[in-house]
Amino acid sequence: MNEPVFSPITWRGDHLALLDQTLLPQEERWLECHTPAEVAAAIRRLAVRGAPAIGVAAAYGLVLGLRQGFDPPTVIAELAATRPTAVNLRWALLRGEERLRAAQERGLAGEELLADLLAWALALQEADVAANAAMAQHGAALFRPGDRVLTHCNAGALATAGIGTAIGVITAAWQRGHVAQVWVDETRPLLQGARLTAWELARLGIPHRLVTDSSVGALMSRGLVDRVVVGADRIARNGDTANKIGTYTVAVLAARHQVPFYIAAPLSTIDLATASGNEIPIEERDGDEVRQLGGHTITPAATRALNFAFDVTPAELIAGIITEVGVLAPPYGASIAAAFRGD
Amino acid sequence: MNEPVFSPITWRGDHLALLDQTLLPQEERWLECHTPAEVAAAIRRLAVRGAPAIGVAAAYGLVLGLRQGFDPPTVIAELAATRPTAVNLRWALLRGEERLRAAQERGLAGEELLADLLAWALALQEADVAANAAMAQHGAALFRPGDRVLTHCNAGALATAGIGTAIGVITAAWQRGHVAQVWVDETRPLLQGARLTAWELARLGIPHRLVTDSSVGALMSRGLVDRVVVGADRIARNGDTANKIGTYTVAVLAARHQVPFYIAAPLSTIDLATASGNEIPIEERDGDEVRQLGGHTITPAATRALNFAFDVTPAELIAGIITEVGVLAPPYGASIAAAFRGD
Repeated sequence: MNEPVFSPITWRGDHLALLDQTLLPQEERWLECHTPAEVAAAIRRLAVRGAPAIGVAAAYGLVLGLRQGFDPPTVIAELAATRPTAVNLRWALLRGEERLRAAQERGLAGEELLADLLAWALALQEADVAANAAMAQHGAALFRPGDRVLTHCNAGALATAGIGTAIGVITAAWQRGHVAQVWVDETRPLLQGARLTAWELARLGIPHRLVTDSSVGALMSRGLVDRVVVGADRIARNGDTANKIGTYTVAVLAARHQVPFYIAAPLSTIDLATASGNEIPIEERDGDEVRQLGGHTITPAATRALNFAFDVTPAELIAGIITEVGVLAPPYGASIAAAFRGD
Repeated sequence: MNEPVFSPITWRGDHLALLDQTLLPQEERWLECHTPAEVAAAIRRLAVRGAPAIGVAAAYGLVLGLRQGFDPPTVIAELAATRPTAVNLRWALLRGEERLRAAQERGLAGEELLADLLAWALALQEADVAANAAMAQHGAALFRPGDRVLTHCNAGALATAGIGTAIGVITAAWQRGHVAQVWVDETRPLLQGARLTAWELARLGIPHRLVTDSSVGALMSRGLVDRVVVGADRIARNGDTANKIGTYTVAVLAARHQVPFYIAAPLSTIDLATASGNEIPIEERDGDEVRQLGGHTITPAATRALNFAFDVTPAELIAGIITEVGVLAPPYGASIAAAFRGD
């Protein structure tokens, strides 16, 4: 099962269709995006989310911009400004810019230029599918029969073009008979665990159980968690990893309870230009995401909220980084450099 | 400010009025309880909650039982069975049983017996008010100007008969000018932080800010938390402490970041019959508290949830236990024994 059973990102000949993840699991509604502005809006309001997925969506956004005759640098700036933390977004746009420049240097223009950029975006999506499949097999080899694995947020098919990063790994391990149960924490404030990861695992038929984010300590202290696998939004070249808020807490608890804590992410999530976690910009989102539930304000009117979207897990808490070229081991400065050299 | 600005538990001559905490902060509705069964139901569905508050409510439940001519042992069994973790419930009922027996041995019966038991319940409530006031002053002395203090769940006026345990301490420290801000974590699944603690702090005019439970690690890693004070549902005689699920996680993070972590609780929360945290029964509540938000199911139909109401924080992570007789220091085996001897 290297192909995803569904993909939230589908190119439909002349426009991009995105599964609106804000409505899952109650409703499966597709957004039909014909302009880069529509793609940017979908990224900003998390209709499409997950670092690899927003990289792929942004690539198609660039294609839509070219189709409509917009100035590529303006389109790139608009898409890049949507979210600051996930590096795959800028990574994809940088590669798109290079592809455009190379095509223009080869004399391509008009329909030919558009066809070339579209071929690039389709290939980018296919490469993410392949990377997911490869990291799933590398990661699955870490599991032992009966493992109860915990994941945070959603790093599955909804967050990528393929079968997912963390969920891809868990799926492959489950297919080998090595996963007894997945613990899904709900991932407040936007409940990507309760809404999206649970939805994917239910579709895949993988046994899972939901807990609140603050239950992870109790599970670990009772010996109910054997392994943690999560995704990443940006990995610094020393291995420090930004991921959904709450990931750091899970990693600290895992360290206390000697539970191996793994990151699963493609090399495109590793940012060699970022030396350490201190340099990763952390998005702060609207406090109303915390103050409101199901459209109702749950707090007193005077109460303000602080809403960091991500936190940083230091490399020392990470047992391994599962990538498409293998599982990188600490010290990550060396193993990441080697992976990029192709050693 | 030793008297609470409001109390969720009020004896009204012939019945008990309880502020229905499940409806706060949207609605302030009082439940009028005329029977022990109504009090038991209110405790079970968390209309009244917080270890000291349910102890006081149970005392009045016993009074209501006697008024209505029910058999006291049956009433005590019914009330004791509502919730397993908070020891104040059983502590109050045991004392009520002793009071009844002593009164009957003195020959009291009928209206005289009832008056004696009611006087006992009113005194129990007053004693909790006094204990809150005393622990507030002991705890406030731990603070330094500018402190940003984090609390989990609700250990305020809503959880006690007085100004609260943890919130009482924070209020007294704020009155001394030593609290710059309170961090309130929302406390899923039932949001006692977002709904109740924020409501109390807003009424008191104490600066506060709401975060998700999983943001605590990010706050601490940024150096934004100077101190943690939380309440307790049961403290074993070695200092291990059961409190709202998620407390253990906060304590583990606090230890990693050298943030002092305090428990505030009256001596009635310390159970000398419980040797360690391993012996504390942990209530498991309906998974739908996690699966549903605002009356809507947020998860796929196939997804089940596990919902522990409490976790246990080991004594080694606790910097001090703030009680009405002073701040107990580790090792708690010795300091708790001394406090009960009245040293």
